[in-house]
Amino acid sequence: MKVLLHGKAQNCRTVSFDADDNSVQLIDQRLLPHQFDVVATKDYRETAWAIQDMVVRGAPAIAATAAYGLAQGVRAWRGSSIHAFNEHIQRVFNTLAEARPTAVDPVNAMRQVLTVIKRGSTVSECQKLALEAAEQFAQASVEECLAIGRHGACLIKDGMRILTHCNAGWLACVDVGTATAPLYAAQAAGKKFHVFCDETRPRCQGASLTAWELHHQGISHHVIADNAAGHLMQRGEIDLVIVGSDRTLGRTGHVANKIGTYTKAVLAHRHKIPFYVALPLSTLDWQVTGPNNIPIEERDESEVLGAWGALNGNGLSQRAYVRITNPGSHARNPGFDVTPPELVTGIITPVGIFRPKELWKNRRKLGWSPSGDYSS
Amino acid sequence: MKVLLHGKAQNCRTVSFDADDNSVQLIDQRLLPHQFDVVATKDYRETAWAIQDMVVRGAPAIAATAAYGLAQGVRAWRGSSIHAFNEHIQRVFNTLAEARPTAVDPVNAMRQVLTVIKRGSTVSECQKLALEAAEQFAQASVEECLAIGRHGACLIKDGMRILTHCNAGWLACVDVGTATAPLYAAQAAGKKFHVFCDETRPRCQGASLTAWELHHQGISHHVIADNAAGHLMQRGEIDLVIVGSDRTLGRTGHVANKIGTYTKAVLAHRHKIPFYVALPLSTLDWQVTGPNNIPIEERDESEVLGAWGALNGNGLSQRAYVRITNPGSHARNPGFDVTPPELVTGIITPVGIFRPKELWKNRRKLGWSPSGDYSS
Repeated sequence: MKVLLHGKAQNCRTVSFDADDNSVQLIDQRLLPHQFDVVATKDYRETAWAIQDMVVRGAPAIAATAAYGLAQGVRAWRGSSIHAFNEHIQRVFNTLAEARPTAVDPVNAMRQVLTVIKRGSTVSECQKLALEAAEQFAQASVEECLAIGRHGACLIKDGMRILTHCNAGWLACVDVGTATAPLYAAQAAGKKFHVFCDETRPRCQGASLTAWELHHQGISHHVIADNAAGHLMQRGEIDLVIVGSDRTLGRTGHVANKIGTYTKAVLAHRHKIPFYVALPLSTLDWQVTGPNNIPIEERDESEVLGAWGALNGNGLSQRAYVRITNPGSHARNPGFDVTPPELVTGIITPVGIFRPKELWKNRRKLGWSPSGDYSS
Repeated sequence: MKVLLHGKAQNCRTVSFDADDNSVQLIDQRLLPHQFDVVATKDYRETAWAIQDMVVRGAPAIAATAAYGLAQGVRAWRGSSIHAFNEHIQRVFNTLAEARPTAVDPVNAMRQVLTVIKRGSTVSECQKLALEAAEQFAQASVEECLAIGRHGACLIKDGMRILTHCNAGWLACVDVGTATAPLYAAQAAGKKFHVFCDETRPRCQGASLTAWELHHQGISHHVIADNAAGHLMQRGEIDLVIVGSDRTLGRTGHVANKIGTYTKAVLAHRHKIPFYVALPLSTLDWQVTGPNNIPIEERDESEVLGAWGALNGNGLSQRAYVRITNPGSHARNPGFDVTPPELVTGIITPVGIFRPKELWKNRRKLGWSPSGDYSS
């Protein structure tokens, strides 16, 4: 991977493509918030590796990366045999799909690109179509986030104090973000507000990534320990909660998201604070019928037993892991939880805001398809 | 400070006194859980410094340390002038009181010792009485914890999964602990159970101190991120919550404790899980009339911005601080929160278990005195 940019944070997309260089360009999120690098992958194998090694993370962002990676692989092909070319495409597809085997978004994104490629009749025509399709996918992803922002910004009034959890920001997307989209739209509309970022242990995406985004967007914010939100709500210091989602059930309105989301929803409900979930349509799962069928990933205990950060006074790029927990003790580490629909005020989507129990009623508007193929 | 013991953890009191050496002996809690040292302070000034530098922490533990420190200072006096001796006692008292200026327990403990000293008529008689009074204070403190354990152990049934927050263990006391006392008593009675320790960001006393205690007591436990308890409750994996308290209002039953306690109480209430608070009588505040009069300390933001731990692979004694949060961002860090009485099932005290709203009715039994002097 080639480092294109090193140093001061720039306003750029999380994922983009350089057609001249045939390279995918990524913000290296492994180094954030302590270092800002934009890197370029030289071929589809390196792009797959970047997905695997979490250079890029977040469902919409890895979906676009896979779409670009497929175009990158297709465009690198030299030869005229359509048969050999098709075999090559399959190889590229498989390599990128295996980079994050449990994620469904990269596969769905690549299927969209494949559908378009098939319209071509020559190798060079297919290569041209592949890049067009990948660019279109990325652009559509950005426009979905912008639409979430337009709908969500109406909820934000001047002077509000808004709580968010984890990172559903532009770093998790191609740009703009989902939970952050209403914030950026409200800021663009000149509204003044303050954001509390849950640090979001164990991986601390709130403290590292969301805080980094808000800082570089110039949005007033404080990081808080996950323990502190309840107290702030009790003292009347939080007016609104907006979070993202990893999977929301279209049939029931249950929201799966980063561990700790459920706790914040319970607290918000007690304090009558509106609790919103922002998501792109690809996050809606129309098949799973109930919350008990959502698998909750139990992640490695090392995440809870310690923390990653920058060593104090030794330069910002020196990342280190410190063990916090008693050496003889072990940890449980559920990665996600499920918030029931009665605790969610509304779901902010690119096509409007819906009560969670009304998603099913509005399923056609929300991209449900009777064929069961939800990838497009 | 002299290191008496270094290495493997021993079963010893958090605070004790060596009469021959005239030294206060302390487990050095700054080094836990990664290193176990018992240190001895050579004089009362060093004892004050040990309180100040958090070699010892926890209200009952620093109270006993101050009582012993006063005896240590009194016993070191060489001379026969009662007037000069009294001046010396006042100096010792002030030095120890100023070591942790906001804490009330050390002052109350030393007042008890002073009351006894006054019964002596010669310097040597006073010196003898001082140590007796300090020993008596420490022993009474242990017996209070044992009594909490006897009452609280009845709540623990075989197979239960118990959540605890922060450290209200024997490290915070002379021995046994408050929130941990029912656990140790239940274990001694042969009951089998499992404990979930909230890591308790930002200072992680649950992950470091409570887990260390339970590990060395051989009690089955897991550390969890503070975000995870809600999910575990939702999945039916927690049966009981026991926490400590920094101050509980005798008039209203409001419980002030480490930040995050309120959140756990709200979650337990939603899931109909019993939520108990264990405390010694000195934690009951009979004067403050309502929760809004409890000052909530806002601590230094550095606690939230990063974490302390042991550097991985570099030996256990190498403590390091890593910065987690985005370098340009700031944090809010309220240290405590207040749980209202309707969320608390019961208060486990040395004289029995009470509903929080029935503390006032039982005030005579609970050490309230009409004179307003609650120090004895």
